[in-house]
Amino acid sequence: MNQSVGHLACGAEAGLISIDQALALIFKNVQSLGTETVALSDALNHFLAEAVYSSLNLPMFSQSAVDGYAICATGDVHAHTEFELVGELRAGQLANISLREGQAVRIFTGAAIPQHTTTVARQEIVQAYADKIVLSHDLATHTDIRDIGEEIAQGQRLAEHGQQLSVGAIAALSMAGVRHVQVYRYPKVAVVITGDEIAMEASDLATGKIFDANAPLIQAWFKARNQKVSIFHVADDEGAVSALFDQLKNQYDLIITTGGVSVGDYDFVRPVALKVGFEQIFWKIKQKPGKPMFFAQYTERNLHHCYLLGLPGNPAAVYVGMQIYASTLLNALQNQQQQPNWFSGQMTHALKPDARERFLRMSVQFEQGILRLSNLTKQQSHMLSNLMHANCLVRVPANQSIQIGQCLNGIFI
Amino acid sequence: MNQSVGHLACGAEAGLISIDQALALIFKNVQSLGTETVALSDALNHFLAEAVYSSLNLPMFSQSAVDGYAICATGDVHAHTEFELVGELRAGQLANISLREGQAVRIFTGAAIPQHTTTVARQEIVQAYADKIVLSHDLATHTDIRDIGEEIAQGQRLAEHGQQLSVGAIAALSMAGVRHVQVYRYPKVAVVITGDEIAMEASDLATGKIFDANAPLIQAWFKARNQKVSIFHVADDEGAVSALFDQLKNQYDLIITTGGVSVGDYDFVRPVALKVGFEQIFWKIKQKPGKPMFFAQYTERNLHHCYLLGLPGNPAAVYVGMQIYASTLLNALQNQQQQPNWFSGQMTHALKPDARERFLRMSVQFEQGILRLSNLTKQQSHMLSNLMHANCLVRVPANQSIQIGQCLNGIFI
Repeated sequence: MNQSVGHLACGAEAGLISIDQALALIFKNVQSLGTETVALSDALNHFLAEAVYSSLNLPMFSQSAVDGYAICATGDVHAHTEFELVGELRAGQLANISLREGQAVRIFTGAAIPQHTTTVARQEIVQAYADKIVLSHDLATHTDIRDIGEEIAQGQRLAEHGQQLSVGAIAALSMAGVRHVQVYRYPKVAVVITGDEIAMEASDLATGKIFDANAPLIQAWFKARNQKVSIFHVADDEGAVSALFDQLKNQYDLIITTGGVSVGDYDFVRPVALKVGFEQIFWKIKQKPGKPMFFAQYTERNLHHCYLLGLPGNPAAVYVGMQIYASTLLNALQNQQQQPNWFSGQMTHALKPDARERFLRMSVQFEQGILRLSNLTKQQSHMLSNLMHANCLVRVPANQSIQIGQCLNGIFI
Repeated sequence: MNQSVGHLACGAEAGLISIDQALALIFKNVQSLGTETVALSDALNHFLAEAVYSSLNLPMFSQSAVDGYAICATGDVHAHTEFELVGELRAGQLANISLREGQAVRIFTGAAIPQHTTTVARQEIVQAYADKIVLSHDLATHTDIRDIGEEIAQGQRLAEHGQQLSVGAIAALSMAGVRHVQVYRYPKVAVVITGDEIAMEASDLATGKIFDANAPLIQAWFKARNQKVSIFHVADDEGAVSALFDQLKNQYDLIITTGGVSVGDYDFVRPVALKVGFEQIFWKIKQKPGKPMFFAQYTERNLHHCYLLGLPGNPAAVYVGMQIYASTLLNALQNQQQQPNWFSGQMTHALKPDARERFLRMSVQFEQGILRLSNLTKQQSHMLSNLMHANCLVRVPANQSIQIGQCLNGIFI
């Protein structure tokens, strides 16, 4: 039970890497998963593994932009001009009419204009009778016509390789007739909650245990991204952790653990991971919260890779670990060398320096186009309640007094 | 087939309401749905129908903040002081040890400190032997102890009535042992896509039909919010629309339609809705895109309400309709008088005035704490492709030249 005095003080520990170094090591070491073809309706939030080109013109045919009358005339038309009414075209009908000069057809928004249409009169400027129409206003040639291909020409690139598919992107690709897309595969994720202190039932509380915030946190984090994960609980027992890692490493692309990564005598995650064949990529980041973060990879005959992100057990460290490191790692697994989406905001008050770079839970407000950041209380790593009021996570550099008005980077949460 | 000339020009139509009037009419007319109790794990993004109070202290017991040694001493302790080592306490174990002055126990992060603990020495400042420890640094009293209730006292309010449950809120409530919460019920939503022009198969394209962006758009929009909707397609046929509305009005809380709400001869949504018992709340908003937006309610013997949001058929109008009106309506149905979450940003260039208030798809960038807005091309209501590059939807007031640097409100998309 002898302890060597390995370290001097919390922030000044030797060998710790910076946040940027940790993120760079993720990008350097993580191999992206393969690609797969999925239905566009299943592709929300996925990253394209191909550029997408349009097989169609958009609009697909020249069409009316309004409910009104397609007209054949020479040049602009004056008010009071009459046209013979020769038919009607609804959206979705074939434009099997060919107009001659002086003729018009009733037409509806989105309907293909007939051959020889020179302009379209919206119904608000038309007096209609059974067999003719009369314009009540002057009308320029080529009014209210959407030309074939004016938005997208056939063969034009619609989306870039690597682009993440938003709701709007799904809609835009649907309109161009895209039904399937090639995307990077989303990893299969296992979550392992360690710690004998986790209460499984309310009755456990009497025996010194606590309720777990970490499994619900991680589950909700993935749910917000439309992903499911498998959750495992394991005791602080070397054999149990070892058996579980041995089972998971071949079945999952990513194992996220909580707890057990510090230097306590019952912190089995790192030693066991190394024993079952994981290689350490980094351990310990000079940050607060979440210093003892561990990242490792396992390679099965160069065919299968499993990564292990070992988060500390404190829930605030888990929260930061998910928002910053898990999100970056998931990007990397999907072939995106992409850090979290940092905004910059201006501090509304000063902050004292700290020896470690910090992630602070803050409240951001918009004032005349400026993001104003206000820090919240209760930032300690075992505290989470300020997430009830926080809407961003802000990165504060180490060893600096932060001044009012100074710009810091953060992410919306 | 006679047409009356009811309207003068697009922007100057009489009787149109403003965007703010439309949003206010939603809040004024919509009755919130009831409440329900759900498992916390199913409550992500729901609004609380109750304040939540903590049944626990957090921390639940005074505990060590580090891996180290719990010590009993009088006042601060000097370097080189020795303590008798009398045991070990792990997280999750009962602290069934009572220290006497001069004694210490090995302790791990999160473990309950024994009775009479005066301070905790982190292991980095301790030389440990089989039966004693020696401090290598001075140590103040009450160091590295997390006190019972220091974050949350038993009975303290954790969350407010009406609060929306984020990932962080779910985690914070979990830690306080909350397993179920009372929330406002999410509406049952039916989506009705009208229009004979919608291609159901690629082979339909030859006959003048087009691919539908609206069903995939709305489906993805709800999926991004972890909600499922039922999608129905219906022909531009009065009988078919009528039969469908009659069926849906009793089974759903909200019907969202696309297309068929203008004044074209085949725009059946509004007349049929009125015929099957819906009462109009508003029709036509002085905005671009999405002018002919229709909103109505149906009441079944004061027991069941069904609301109908009739969106135009143009996909850009549908997009705006979902982001601005459907989101507001869903808030109202969940008892929240809450508009979309507007930011303010500064324009990087000028915009010409328009007679209608506009929603423009833009790109926002953060520069030194300032949101900089840049407009995108291809804003017409039948065009969606710029959603590939847009990350916000910006509200531009009517009849104003917008200057460089002027602040506009928008939402992130």
